[in-house]
Amino acid sequence: MNVDGKPYRTIWIKEDDANIVQIIDQRHLPHQFIIEDLTAVDDVARAIKDMHVRGAGLIGATAGYGMYLAALHAPHDDTEAFTESLITAGEKLQATRPTAVNLEWAIKRQLEAIEAAGDDVEDKIETAFTTAQAIADEDADFCRRIGQHGLSIIEEISRRKPGDTVNVLTHCNAGWLAFVDYGTATAPIYAAHDRGLKIHVWVDETRPRNQGARLTAWELGQHGVPHRVIADNVGGHLMQHGLVDLVITGTDRTTFTGDVANKIGTYLKALAARDNGIPFYVALPSSTFDWQMRDGIKEIPIEQRDATEVKYINGLHDGEIKSVLLMPEDSPAANYAFDVTPARLVTGLITERGICPASEEGVLGLYPEQRR
Amino acid sequence: MNVDGKPYRTIWIKEDDANIVQIIDQRHLPHQFIIEDLTAVDDVARAIKDMHVRGAGLIGATAGYGMYLAALHAPHDDTEAFTESLITAGEKLQATRPTAVNLEWAIKRQLEAIEAAGDDVEDKIETAFTTAQAIADEDADFCRRIGQHGLSIIEEISRRKPGDTVNVLTHCNAGWLAFVDYGTATAPIYAAHDRGLKIHVWVDETRPRNQGARLTAWELGQHGVPHRVIADNVGGHLMQHGLVDLVITGTDRTTFTGDVANKIGTYLKALAARDNGIPFYVALPSSTFDWQMRDGIKEIPIEQRDATEVKYINGLHDGEIKSVLLMPEDSPAANYAFDVTPARLVTGLITERGICPASEEGVLGLYPEQRR
Repeated sequence: MNVDGKPYRTIWIKEDDANIVQIIDQRHLPHQFIIEDLTAVDDVARAIKDMHVRGAGLIGATAGYGMYLAALHAPHDDTEAFTESLITAGEKLQATRPTAVNLEWAIKRQLEAIEAAGDDVEDKIETAFTTAQAIADEDADFCRRIGQHGLSIIEEISRRKPGDTVNVLTHCNAGWLAFVDYGTATAPIYAAHDRGLKIHVWVDETRPRNQGARLTAWELGQHGVPHRVIADNVGGHLMQHGLVDLVITGTDRTTFTGDVANKIGTYLKALAARDNGIPFYVALPSSTFDWQMRDGIKEIPIEQRDATEVKYINGLHDGEIKSVLLMPEDSPAANYAFDVTPARLVTGLITERGICPASEEGVLGLYPEQRR
Repeated sequence: MNVDGKPYRTIWIKEDDANIVQIIDQRHLPHQFIIEDLTAVDDVARAIKDMHVRGAGLIGATAGYGMYLAALHAPHDDTEAFTESLITAGEKLQATRPTAVNLEWAIKRQLEAIEAAGDDVEDKIETAFTTAQAIADEDADFCRRIGQHGLSIIEEISRRKPGDTVNVLTHCNAGWLAFVDYGTATAPIYAAHDRGLKIHVWVDETRPRNQGARLTAWELGQHGVPHRVIADNVGGHLMQHGLVDLVITGTDRTTFTGDVANKIGTYLKALAARDNGIPFYVALPSSTFDWQMRDGIKEIPIEQRDATEVKYINGLHDGEIKSVLLMPEDSPAANYAFDVTPARLVTGLITERGICPASEEGVLGLYPEQRR
């Protein structure tokens, strides 16, 4: 999407130098827009581990490009040594965020493609390059499709209030910064905005890590989409007063029965949407479905993160990022990272194949190959 | 309640010097505990206006003491000039927080008591003193009673899980810092803790002004009540997993039909409590009832405060309070300060007279003199 009027992805091959991969170093957002060069697999591992890049789709794409850089610098004179070197690179990348499903998937896809590319090392490098590009392109394409399907929901609301602005509420960052382009929850929003529909987004701050205030607000602002940041407490009041037409969030894992694990606080917004008769949609590529779990609330493990993320917060002071203490130093804090919204509160799932009800029948109707 | 092992109120006459009123300067909490001397009505006006003190009950009590200090320094040789001077003082105090109901009430009560005290100025000063003390004592007594009534709810839960900790969730600060002592939402918690019941409090941070993280956590910690601070997003997840037995909040205004206006985000917790079958109580002195309004959501005006409260936050950095920017400087923010929880989501109201259902019949049953 656009940054300062110019279209970007979150990761790309540098123009005029195919030996360099470039990313947006997201640690500095929203205060500084810094592009970082990655020239070796160690750079890539550090960028993933230290969260220069984050988000399921982008982590997978970055790992794909990491394997390409590993191939570039692997021993060229010995196919076996080349392959060994790539396996080591894959292990190094895998260790950066051990629970990221897309990481494992991208590394495996690269290793299989490179293996299948014959014995010529130059062919293998070429394959690593095209596979990295394909992973990124597919990610962007899936998000673009999600945007097109979700656009129909916004168009329908817009038709019911001609000339009026459609108000969408979103939680956390399921934006293009978390993928290669478009994002998931944001994809229908960008599609509607680019189509010329009047749209305005309520951006939940998303404590404790403030991905909404830091990232979603930044990317919407850069692309020119009208928005306002609100404290996470505000959504219910807005819905009571007719100021929200639609809620769209992303998800970190969704059971094939439609239970949605997403950033902590999503469940509260789904309850408020239900209480006020407002549609609550979840946007996801099918890679996010969990085809094993049936009961999200009982089965999905919820990460507890360090309490310092609640006690301290980073912000800009006199041009520098500073961390400030928000509460009594001696008081303990708890930091649950996700919650599960039960399927009964979800109006529908927006996937790359279309929109379906958040139910086993609905999901398997779109993905019949998953029927057992 | 206790601070560092020693019992305090939020406002008191200085020991050994009845010409000085002392308060806790709450602007510095939780990072510093600073006691401030107030010696004249101008000090008191500044303390209210600049929020050294805040909270309905405490604002009223502070105004009461302000009128006493005004009486001390008014012309003593001319009863008419004395009375004029007190009326001016009352106007000065009233102008500090024009919408605070308790402010107007306390000033009026003082003026009437002083008027009724005869012509002797010394008698009038004595009356101003005893009235100030009476206002503070009554505030503390009402909160103490709320605590005793609410204690029965906690005892009942405790009986159902013998030996186990009772987990209470609260939002914002309806603690003793907002009143003279005990608080409202916290009064049953302190009563249970002092009775030796095992209790633990989930403290909602309460963005954007963080009264939970700054004030409620501090006062619970100082009094020795086990607690953990959580982001406002977390409560629903905790309730889904049986980690909350009871929600108690305060209120800024409650209709006689039981609709509860309170700090923004209260409604979301009430929805989660209902969805998980958890009791949701609101504690209030009867002065908080609005005897005119029937429909809280339609009729109670919701203050919109400055967006800078959302965009920036104060915290401690290297021993100094610093303000940091949390989001893109160019992104707008909206700052709704309160929301209304409809009576249907409220299990009961805990008042100084007892507990009643959140309904017209329930409220008028406890306050029959309000029947028209």
